[in-house]
Amino acid sequence: MSKADCGSSDMPFLRSELALEGRHTLDEFFEWYRERLASGTFQVRRVPFAELDKWAFRGDPLRLSHDSGKFFSVEGVEVTTSFGAVPRWEQPIINQPEIGILGILTKEFDGVLHFLMQAKMEPGNINTLQISPTVQATKSNYTQVHKGNVPTYLEYFVGSGNTRILVDQLQSEQGARFLAKRNRNMIIETREDVEPHPDFIWLTLGQIKKILAHDNIMNMDARTVLSCVPYFTDRDIYCYDSVERHVLEEINGYSRKLIESMSRQPELTDFDRIISWLTTLKCGVEMSVRRKPVDRLEGWRLTGDSLAHESGRYFSVIGVEVRAGNREVISWSQPLLEHFGVGLCGFLTQMQDGVLQFLVSARVEPGNRDIVEFGPTVARSGVPDGVAPAPVPLAEYFSAGEDVEVVFDAVHSEEGGRFYHFRNRYMVVEAKPGVDVDVPDGCMWMTLAQISRLIKFSLFNVEARNLFACLDLNMRT
Amino acid sequence: MSKADCGSSDMPFLRSELALEGRHTLDEFFEWYRERLASGTFQVRRVPFAELDKWAFRGDPLRLSHDSGKFFSVEGVEVTTSFGAVPRWEQPIINQPEIGILGILTKEFDGVLHFLMQAKMEPGNINTLQISPTVQATKSNYTQVHKGNVPTYLEYFVGSGNTRILVDQLQSEQGARFLAKRNRNMIIETREDVEPHPDFIWLTLGQIKKILAHDNIMNMDARTVLSCVPYFTDRDIYCYDSVERHVLEEINGYSRKLIESMSRQPELTDFDRIISWLTTLKCGVEMSVRRKPVDRLEGWRLTGDSLAHESGRYFSVIGVEVRAGNREVISWSQPLLEHFGVGLCGFLTQMQDGVLQFLVSARVEPGNRDIVEFGPTVARSGVPDGVAPAPVPLAEYFSAGEDVEVVFDAVHSEEGGRFYHFRNRYMVVEAKPGVDVDVPDGCMWMTLAQISRLIKFSLFNVEARNLFACLDLNMRT
Repeated sequence: MSKADCGSSDMPFLRSELALEGRHTLDEFFEWYRERLASGTFQVRRVPFAELDKWAFRGDPLRLSHDSGKFFSVEGVEVTTSFGAVPRWEQPIINQPEIGILGILTKEFDGVLHFLMQAKMEPGNINTLQISPTVQATKSNYTQVHKGNVPTYLEYFVGSGNTRILVDQLQSEQGARFLAKRNRNMIIETREDVEPHPDFIWLTLGQIKKILAHDNIMNMDARTVLSCVPYFTDRDIYCYDSVERHVLEEINGYSRKLIESMSRQPELTDFDRIISWLTTLKCGVEMSVRRKPVDRLEGWRLTGDSLAHESGRYFSVIGVEVRAGNREVISWSQPLLEHFGVGLCGFLTQMQDGVLQFLVSARVEPGNRDIVEFGPTVARSGVPDGVAPAPVPLAEYFSAGEDVEVVFDAVHSEEGGRFYHFRNRYMVVEAKPGVDVDVPDGCMWMTLAQISRLIKFSLFNVEARNLFACLDLNMRT
Repeated sequence: MSKADCGSSDMPFLRSELALEGRHTLDEFFEWYRERLASGTFQVRRVPFAELDKWAFRGDPLRLSHDSGKFFSVEGVEVTTSFGAVPRWEQPIINQPEIGILGILTKEFDGVLHFLMQAKMEPGNINTLQISPTVQATKSNYTQVHKGNVPTYLEYFVGSGNTRILVDQLQSEQGARFLAKRNRNMIIETREDVEPHPDFIWLTLGQIKKILAHDNIMNMDARTVLSCVPYFTDRDIYCYDSVERHVLEEINGYSRKLIESMSRQPELTDFDRIISWLTTLKCGVEMSVRRKPVDRLEGWRLTGDSLAHESGRYFSVIGVEVRAGNREVISWSQPLLEHFGVGLCGFLTQMQDGVLQFLVSARVEPGNRDIVEFGPTVARSGVPDGVAPAPVPLAEYFSAGEDVEVVFDAVHSEEGGRFYHFRNRYMVVEAKPGVDVDVPDGCMWMTLAQISRLIKFSLFNVEARNLFACLDLNMRT
């Protein structure tokens, strides 16, 4: 490969990742964000289930679903598993089998790839409006794209126009809340002029990463798509090296460790070891998920207002009525899963033999498509005020003791179209050299190079992917 | 990495692949094979369903199953799909949800890895006895390993003893005949002395490949495990290069092309392109598989002797009674899926821009766990005498025209424990340079380097994997 092969289009992500200046400054972004919030009205009111329009408890086993049979339903399941501390439980879960598109449109301006992000209101958001991908489209949107009302910019994601596919992967969502749900995560590059729209803004990856350090702004759909961005590809390293080596040389601290963990080409035998671990888990773990009526779930109480756990923990199913709009007002009602407090998703990292490693844990959740997915080091639900959070192994590394440096720490919201006030604190910490981490069963250290390749094969759960989305090469400390 | 890192244990497969001499000669193997065949008795008699001991049609929807609920059942399904030429059909299919182990024990003798292969009789084999992996174990075998009668050598595969895992992958079986069946394919290396047993023999990979050029000797279970062997790993190339470079330099012809196709490190973007293709297929293809009673399958006729298709094509469900043994005689009866004639599974290959490429096709079959798997260029069922085989795209390249060289051509049998006389002709052909292959929709060229990495993630179906198992680096032409 020669330097002539290194056109900027061959290394789209790294250059954008390092760019803190783009078509707008970050100040301009925040001003636009506040202005968008002020321009719309959005009222969310809790209502009893009986006041939900077109939603009702029906079917056998009993579930909460829409008259049309579309959107999603809230069903009951009984879960038994040989994995983990709890061998058996029952819970409501969202069934939404359709594969939607979560897509970000990108375009180069002045040699730097920009991402077209959307300001979007969702009823479950704690702050109404967050930043989402360019499009969130259902299957009926994208299979009937020439009929009726389709999301703005959807045409770029359904094969028309002069576009290049940068990312196109099926990725799962919360296996503890959704039955086998997955979405098509896409990043598309266009060379065409893109018509502007007031709810959309062009940002660099570097800017997006800075915004991710703020609480509750980048929504979950944006984060899952961003998690599919390899910090850079093998070709990027080569090209960046040959074109702007001095920029990489200036990077130090944790960012330098990220780059080195990403660029350490894994041995094929590393994958054999990881796949053998996954095989052992899939063959050894028993899990059965059986449907049950939502009014007969052990430990859960269905009233006119909610389906809630007797302990007050976990989550409740509630109903909301939404009125939204700026010019034209629309209204609808729907169920949401209400969450309490703030959960914790964290990666413990450590330098080992000169390479930064991430401690990955195996996760067995009822909604997993194939028993096991790889998750972060710790994942713990939020709890209501006054309730103690569940003790989980290794959680002590995330309470800022002397053994670790905190690398990333922000609170983000989960999908506001399905969840009401569901927030998690996302943390990446680095154990200091010499700290002897007692790795529990069901955990394995992996480099970013290994992880970035495994993500493509849909092996990492949404909690882990969220954390990878938050990693930032501009952290120069 | 230094030459000192290149112990023979770090490059187990390549050295064994090139070794045509081992603890036995090939002549000794064939003598042993004939002797094993003569030493046992094995009688297989077709019987009406009513004479099957402990098997009966039962349940709703009606199926053919064992009194214990174990082993497998023959069920009916109605399939509808938006993929391919046939939008809807009904068929019997085998349901066997349990994950079994197919494992080969290996051990180094004189620096060359040897594979412990078993002579095994199965009722559906056209020639009674074929060569199988060291163990074929059901889940109840390996989870209750310390109780009762377990397969010889199983202890090496369940974590006891001084062993090293070389391969440990979940791989699918025929998606047109099994509902979501998969087995754990394992290759284990031991350093311990292994107790000899008259039904087992140590062979090198090079010898196994030579035996694979003979019809109907290596059984399907052996072939699927062997297909997980990467011809060599990145480390092997390095090590072999540094240790015995002259051997690799002597290799030429198609074997040299295989080595170069395998050692061409794929760009990460190659995987992005392949995964995007897979994503497009999984999102775009509709497939539904609904259970139906086996006596009400459209186009199929259930009599006392068989469940057969009215056209005489595809396959029939039949019953057999088996009496087997050398010292102690055991007998049992079971259903089998009888197949007619000889099917065709073939890979078309071609040198493109100096690299050997394999034409991979997307396959949508009712038993696939996730809609699509990658298959060979062509796959066509056998048909009874006098019936014309179904026309399939690109089949013309496999009838030895002027456009191709035939690289591999042998007939192999499918699993004799489930199928009666199910044989496929396995062919690898190379299109001559300049032949302009008209690639149909649903096909993509891939290098061996890409394929060997994707196999680990369970993306290739059993027909494709069988063909990879047959590729032989000792073909010096």
